[in-house]
Amino acid sequence: MDMRGVRAVPGGRYPRGVTFPVVGMVGGGQLARMTHEAGIPLGIRFKLLSDTPQDSAAQVVNDVVVGDYRDLDTLREFARGCDVITFDHEHVPTEHLRALEADGIPVRPGPDALVHAQDKGVMRAKLDAIGVPCPRHRIVSDPEDVAAFAAEGDGFPVVLKTVRGGYDGKGVWVVDSVEEAAEPFKAGVPVLAEEKVDYARELAANVVRSPHGQAVAYPVVESQQVDGVCDTVIAPAPGLDEALALQAEELALRIAKELGVIGHLAVELFETRDGRILVNELAMRPHNSGHWTQDGAITSQFANHVRAVLDLPLGDPRPRAKWTVMCNVLGGDYPDMYSAYLHCMARDPQLKIHMYGKDVKPGRKVGHVNTYGDDLDDVLERARHAAGYLRGTITE
Amino acid sequence: MDMRGVRAVPGGRYPRGVTFPVVGMVGGGQLARMTHEAGIPLGIRFKLLSDTPQDSAAQVVNDVVVGDYRDLDTLREFARGCDVITFDHEHVPTEHLRALEADGIPVRPGPDALVHAQDKGVMRAKLDAIGVPCPRHRIVSDPEDVAAFAAEGDGFPVVLKTVRGGYDGKGVWVVDSVEEAAEPFKAGVPVLAEEKVDYARELAANVVRSPHGQAVAYPVVESQQVDGVCDTVIAPAPGLDEALALQAEELALRIAKELGVIGHLAVELFETRDGRILVNELAMRPHNSGHWTQDGAITSQFANHVRAVLDLPLGDPRPRAKWTVMCNVLGGDYPDMYSAYLHCMARDPQLKIHMYGKDVKPGRKVGHVNTYGDDLDDVLERARHAAGYLRGTITE
Repeated sequence: MDMRGVRAVPGGRYPRGVTFPVVGMVGGGQLARMTHEAGIPLGIRFKLLSDTPQDSAAQVVNDVVVGDYRDLDTLREFARGCDVITFDHEHVPTEHLRALEADGIPVRPGPDALVHAQDKGVMRAKLDAIGVPCPRHRIVSDPEDVAAFAAEGDGFPVVLKTVRGGYDGKGVWVVDSVEEAAEPFKAGVPVLAEEKVDYARELAANVVRSPHGQAVAYPVVESQQVDGVCDTVIAPAPGLDEALALQAEELALRIAKELGVIGHLAVELFETRDGRILVNELAMRPHNSGHWTQDGAITSQFANHVRAVLDLPLGDPRPRAKWTVMCNVLGGDYPDMYSAYLHCMARDPQLKIHMYGKDVKPGRKVGHVNTYGDDLDDVLERARHAAGYLRGTITE
Repeated sequence: MDMRGVRAVPGGRYPRGVTFPVVGMVGGGQLARMTHEAGIPLGIRFKLLSDTPQDSAAQVVNDVVVGDYRDLDTLREFARGCDVITFDHEHVPTEHLRALEADGIPVRPGPDALVHAQDKGVMRAKLDAIGVPCPRHRIVSDPEDVAAFAAEGDGFPVVLKTVRGGYDGKGVWVVDSVEEAAEPFKAGVPVLAEEKVDYARELAANVVRSPHGQAVAYPVVESQQVDGVCDTVIAPAPGLDEALALQAEELALRIAKELGVIGHLAVELFETRDGRILVNELAMRPHNSGHWTQDGAITSQFANHVRAVLDLPLGDPRPRAKWTVMCNVLGGDYPDMYSAYLHCMARDPQLKIHMYGKDVKPGRKVGHVNTYGDDLDDVLERARHAAGYLRGTITE
């Protein structure tokens, strides 16, 4: 049977005669940059809506539109030339996404799914409804209500989060008293209270799902945070009970399906001391916890995200190495990261450097390094040394 | 000792305060496209001189200058913004390269090395001088001289090549008589005659060399040609005698050093039926015989070429898989390659597709696929099926 007559249609305005689709990426950060990198070998066309011409992705993409995604006219004009729209971040307002869909342009992930990554209150309510284990939680109205929430459980400390707008530790507070609980309410945004989980460690179960309903699950990883920001990811999570790993993967797949996620979904988890998993956060885009896949998996999260938003068959998510470690490179005291390459590359010819083209500012994510191999101690040491040297906290 | 004070200087005009260097790529073909892809994670800045805005690399690079590299003013103006110049092809005239060097811009590989890839007569003379085994050869003046050359050996057939301008089988003739020998001389370019080697197979020994003199050698591969164009590459070459493989690698390293090559050098070889190797051709750029490295080696030829031209330490060239196969995708009867993705990706979730964004024309190189694994028969079958299906010679 000649299959060539059947053209793979991504579900949008896909004129015959135009072969490779145009993927429209909203947001010019490093996730967009790395998605473009993954799209190059697929021959697809990549159009970028970037805040500035110097954004991470704008530096390496040919077709760049500089504009404000919050302006609906700008967004609609940008989308007009695209076969599908996807995102580098989760800040595009729901109404804007609905307008694009009304224009007939596939938006992936769609607004009905994305709202669960944009609004923690909506996310918690949905996860409760589908029976997904979460930390004890509820929306709280004021500091006194926070105290009541604390009293309903084991008391302070309590975690408070604004339901919208948080990332990389921002918009999250750990409060020890009614007095400290005043701060989050100043934003004027609803506040979600959560029990402070005494977790053994944090994990991430990441999956990619396509409009066809096909989904793949990456190995569950361990994610180590420093000051609320991802620092080190180990793939797979060392010593993770096989049954718990499978439970985490199935949980992530179920969440993706129930929420109608298209593309990459990162499910950040707590592993409790008594061996249970609780869902912490969701992200519907390629995610920091999946950067290791660029060098450690058969198909990277970025390549699979591109396939998913185009409704192409997904690539094999399995690991290529026994252990892969990613360490974030944050800005330190040295504005010049390039001068560190000599040392890092000479020391480790297998090191995989991924820099984002961003100006160095203290604590800012400006890149990451991946290492892989059979000896976890060695793989960890190599990644940590390289990240530290690039940052400038290690100098020899 | 604090190494950060020592800035990695690529040897050119590298102003303090500007951290990531600008690599200027002359030529917008797929080699430039894939070099840009490899440069993205290094955070380096990439500037492209392209014949047209639609060239393969121009589609995916941000900083594109459209212009004719043969015009010296255009070339010099382009190079002015770059820290180093390198190439997607070997057609830039020697005098132009010398002019750039006189302007103080590092040209890598430099004109003294490149001439050996541009002029087959110069190449043969040099290889003879350094004692590198070659097919019997000499410059011939006319068809009668070709007959004399034939008579000096085993007679016709004889291989004739114009010393400049040939690639992908063009500019090469296999002639069986004095009459047939007339054709190559019509170009008005000197003609090189070579014995027609009765080879067992063709190999490629590829290396990368940096200005520091550091060099790495990739595993020797088997290269299968169809109609003078590369069709399939198998890495490593199956059943290759270990001593012969080592000899080939050392030969390539020696050629790179003796010719002063910076960047990637492809040494195309004949393996004779009696187990010797002879040098066929040289290419001083990333090469078709090295595309497998994108998925099958720790560091791809493109990534190492970038490092070399920037005088950075080279990456590990060793394989990541037992067998890696590359098959070229040539244009066939179907103008729409994208519609083949559905079948190819669904059939083989481990398939690595690399398309160039080029319009399909019959016989034109429009992409390649890589496969890897432990079972060579399986790896070969998967690559051949995918390449054939994309081309349209296989339809189910």
